[in-house]
Amino acid sequence: MSQTSAKRPLTTLQKNTKKNVIVRLKNEVEYKGKMDNVDSYMNLIMTDAEELKDDKVIANYGRVIVRGNNVLFIKLESDL
Amino acid sequence: MSQTSAKRPLTTLQKNTKKNVIVRLKNEVEYKGKMDNVDSYMNLIMTDAEELKDDKVIANYGRVIVRGNNVLFIKLESDL
Amino acid sequence: MSQTSAKRPLTTLQKNTKKNVIVRLKNEVEYKGKMDNVDSYMNLIMTDAEELKDDKVIANYGRVIVRGNNVLFIKLESDL
Amino acid sequence: MSQTSAKRPLTTLQKNTKKNVIVRLKNEVEYKGKMDNVDSYMNLIMTDAEELKDDKVIANYGRVIVRGNNVLFIKLESDL
Amino acid sequence: MSQTSAKRPLTTLQKNTKKNVIVRLKNEVEYKGKMDNVDSYMNLIMTDAEELKDDKVIANYGRVIVRGNNVLFIKLESDL
Amino acid sequence: MSQTSAKRPLTTLQKNTKKNVIVRLKNEVEYKGKMDNVDSYMNLIMTDAEELKDDKVIANYGRVIVRGNNVLFIKLESDL
Amino acid sequence: MSQTSAKRPLTTLQKNTKKNVIVRLKNEVEYKGKMDNVDSYMNLIMTDAEELKDDKVIANYGRVIVRGNNVLFIKLESDL
Repeated sequence: MSQTSAKRPLTTLQKNTKKNVIVRLKNEVEYKGKMDNVDSYMNLIMTDAEELKDDKVIANYGRVIVRGNNVLFIKLESDL
Repeated sequence: MSQTSAKRPLTTLQKNTKKNVIVRLKNEVEYKGKMDNVDSYMNLIMTDAEELKDDKVIANYGRVIVRGNNVLFIKLESDL
Repeated sequence: MSQTSAKRPLTTLQKNTKKNVIVRLKNEVEYKGKMDNVDSYMNLIMTDAEELKDDKVIANYGRVIVRGNNVLFIKLESDL
Repeated sequence: MSQTSAKRPLTTLQKNTKKNVIVRLKNEVEYKGKMDNVDSYMNLIMTDAEELKDDKVIANYGRVIVRGNNVLFIKLESDL
Repeated sequence: MSQTSAKRPLTTLQKNTKKNVIVRLKNEVEYKGKMDNVDSYMNLIMTDAEELKDDKVIANYGRVIVRGNNVLFIKLESDL
Repeated sequence: MSQTSAKRPLTTLQKNTKKNVIVRLKNEVEYKGKMDNVDSYMNLIMTDAEELKDDKVIANYGRVIVRGNNVLFIKLESDL
Repeated sequence: MSQTSAKRPLTTLQKNTKKNVIVRLKNEVEYKGKMDNVDSYMNLIMTDAEELKDDKVIANYGRVIVRGNNVLFIKLESDL
């Protein structure tokens, strides 16, 4: 397998900026929208994001900055 | 997409000083007001801030310094 | 807006030493009194402080050192 | 026993990229799939992953990045 | 106000070694006794210390080393 | 007592690789098996490990990597 | 008071290796036995240790390595 296909997690994350993701936080709430940018701490800017709890939309955000230490996982666009 | 439009989260946050934001903390309480300043740890000064719990105003603050490690997310002005 | 009016949070905090503040900790207890000093970790010395829980005074402290990692926010004097 | 057979945990983990693993997080949820990559913080990319709770599949992920600090343990392929 | 009267929290703490203090930990238990020594992490040695819960003495310690990260606050001698 | 007999904890831990241990995690679950390797963060590889809860075997693992920050203690072979 | 009698906490802790201690962890469980060694993170090796919960012996350990971040306090031999 080529090295190219085995990117480190943070490199892959960085390459997915401007794409749609779902971010689940430790408090089980999810944010679904465009990941406008992200840094190595997983601080991230979401735009046009829906806030979901138990799969229901409970709020909408034009632009929100999530503090990275709260992130449980980030589901990438190929899934959405 | 130009590099200019893809600012890192902390740069974007810094550019939003003096604008209105809503800060949600890990304990689910929110602070809505002007983000007078912020540092890279997400310590921030809020002025003329309302404290909200379950969308109800429960207190008002002329000027308050929030310790960054408590921050869940910061909703930027374009939403408000 | 001038740079002077946009101090970083820790600089503003430092400038408020010897003034009255209310410090809320993560355990929801508050300390109201003079912030005798503070460092960049938000360790702080409070003098002549009241300890409040649910807005009731439950104890008084002549001088107490609070460990910074417990701090939720610090409300500055202009509010009091 | 040869030094070769006694790899440090993070070296062993790195050698298992592209293999199937089960990752259990601190919140007791498990992710079973291919570990596409991993870094020294245990941030990892899972592909074609099932999310399991109490041994039941509750969701499927094409590609998901798990933040390393949430990891409890990673079960390696020889078990699966 | 002179600089002398505005010591940083850790300097003030250090100057109070060999004096009586009450240390409250995050688990709400308190230790009342002589602070034999302390370091910048707030690790501290207490001697002839009473352990208090809800203001009742529940144990006595000739000499105990408390790990600093558990400390909520330290009440200084002038109060006791 | 000679210096040789007073090894630092991480040195002693390292010398016990390839021996049987019981690792208890903060969530009270235990892993009993061979500690194939360990690093200074207490990340460790267990092989042929039983997972125990309340002293009952609830799962078996051929090879599992435990993230060190979850470790409560490691019981060494001389006990087993 | 001489400088000699005012050792820093970690120095005092180090001088108590090979002596009996009681270690209380954050989960309220205690370990009573000989502190065979300890490092500056408070990782420690206990030998011939009893595990106590609510003052009752619930297990015995020939040799156990406790991860330092779990430590609440360490009661030194002069008390035992």
